[in-house]
Amino acid sequence: MQDYEHQAQYYETDQMGIIHHSNYIRWMEEARMDYLSRIGFPMETIESAGIVSPVVSVGCHYKKPCRLNERILIHVDIQSYNGVKLVLCYRMFEKGTGELRAEGESSHCFTTSEGRICSLKKAYPQLHARLMEELDSADVPWA
Amino acid sequence: MQDYEHQAQYYETDQMGIIHHSNYIRWMEEARMDYLSRIGFPMETIESAGIVSPVVSVGCHYKKPCRLNERILIHVDIQSYNGVKLVLCYRMFEKGTGELRAEGESSHCFTTSEGRICSLKKAYPQLHARLMEELDSADVPWA
Amino acid sequence: MQDYEHQAQYYETDQMGIIHHSNYIRWMEEARMDYLSRIGFPMETIESAGIVSPVVSVGCHYKKPCRLNERILIHVDIQSYNGVKLVLCYRMFEKGTGELRAEGESSHCFTTSEGRICSLKKAYPQLHARLMEELDSADVPWA
Amino acid sequence: MQDYEHQAQYYETDQMGIIHHSNYIRWMEEARMDYLSRIGFPMETIESAGIVSPVVSVGCHYKKPCRLNERILIHVDIQSYNGVKLVLCYRMFEKGTGELRAEGESSHCFTTSEGRICSLKKAYPQLHARLMEELDSADVPWA
Repeated sequence: MQDYEHQAQYYETDQMGIIHHSNYIRWMEEARMDYLSRIGFPMETIESAGIVSPVVSVGCHYKKPCRLNERILIHVDIQSYNGVKLVLCYRMFEKGTGELRAEGESSHCFTTSEGRICSLKKAYPQLHARLMEELDSADVPWA
Repeated sequence: MQDYEHQAQYYETDQMGIIHHSNYIRWMEEARMDYLSRIGFPMETIESAGIVSPVVSVGCHYKKPCRLNERILIHVDIQSYNGVKLVLCYRMFEKGTGELRAEGESSHCFTTSEGRICSLKKAYPQLHARLMEELDSADVPWA
Repeated sequence: MQDYEHQAQYYETDQMGIIHHSNYIRWMEEARMDYLSRIGFPMETIESAGIVSPVVSVGCHYKKPCRLNERILIHVDIQSYNGVKLVLCYRMFEKGTGELRAEGESSHCFTTSEGRICSLKKAYPQLHARLMEELDSADVPWA
Repeated sequence: MQDYEHQAQYYETDQMGIIHHSNYIRWMEEARMDYLSRIGFPMETIESAGIVSPVVSVGCHYKKPCRLNERILIHVDIQSYNGVKLVLCYRMFEKGTGELRAEGESSHCFTTSEGRICSLKKAYPQLHARLMEELDSADVPWA
């Protein structure tokens, strides 16, 4: 699958002259939304099916700072999925050099629009099937 | 009325070593919410009365940069109000020196929750009366 | 000149269900950086010529809210330029419909890296000449 | 030690009607800066001693969403420290109810201003001693 690309913006820099670490969490969200669109289930579609997918946890390991105007490629993979919980992992590379800049992960559950935890397998079998397929072909480095 | 205080945060700095200019727009919102609370109409109260107050325009003039950890006092005044449109102005001072750092303004209309423009005088006479009082006592430097 | 495109992100939405108004100021910066690159003077080039261009003021008029995932085209023009002060204006359109969503402006002065105000005509004649050219061909609606 | 307090802002909400998850990472930074000040070593002091403390990783577990205007108390503790690496943990509580909303952690190394990794014990023994004291009295729930 094609990587998501984000160009680092001036307003994302901090006074150390690098991209502030909190922005990587936002880039992960951008890449996640793009990923869901690419596999055929944009967030709007998921939400109109009555499913909400809250963020349960996030994490990011910073390897080397990103700087203004760098183009960062973000590769998203499913780290684990069991019908109830989805864990995505993100590897962020500088486009020009291919250098790894950061690795992140986010975990998500699924709820109905009233906020009740649900099994995606029952509540939205089409998305469940698609995620199982993706899991099967995931390119997780540490798997 | 007591000024609102915001301490400039690390994540608000940029690579020029100063607070990024977009954050002042957010500080104006913080000060505006605080102002509405102080005059007895916190945003939650206004919204539960079925009134929404969209931002129609904002502007900010930067006099001297703000820096990390500075405590910025924000003085809010009504610049104009006519029952349909509210214009607030903001003066931002560094707390220690009293130095003026920026001046901003924001203008707002009022709508019903369905998005129809309304006259506050009719739709929410209590808030209208309170804003008229405030207007009367406003300390607008250029008035 | 080609318009800059920004896709509205989830983290830019607010609890009104629209893009928070402060983000437009950041989009204007994105479009401005892109504009400078397109006319041959990316910010890095300007800074390595020893010129800093602080934001003196910004403003934005909100016509109609932007929403999640909309692709916003931002058209940048020079509103005025006199060798010492540059005013840019921004028109933001939803890509699909061409609908005008917001109009903004930003004004900038030029300083040496020590912070002294300078005339660009003297301090950086190449950029001065290029901005004069752009001014001449600007497509300012109210000009 | 007194907890840090952050009031959740309108511009921090998202279209789910809750605080966007990326902001907790920023609140952790606010609380960390405040913590360093309270133990006698504000970031400015550390930086003027020629020490930089980059973020190596962050993580956050979201228990229950925070909402507009809630006052969030953030309790910071040292989870581990060995002279070279510092791990802080954060517990975020809603002030009114004492309800736990999120738990986070951040890890940090120390470098010289040229970016070389250093041992704080050698490079800045006063801060080292102070962190050892804090570690000794840390109130880590899972320790």
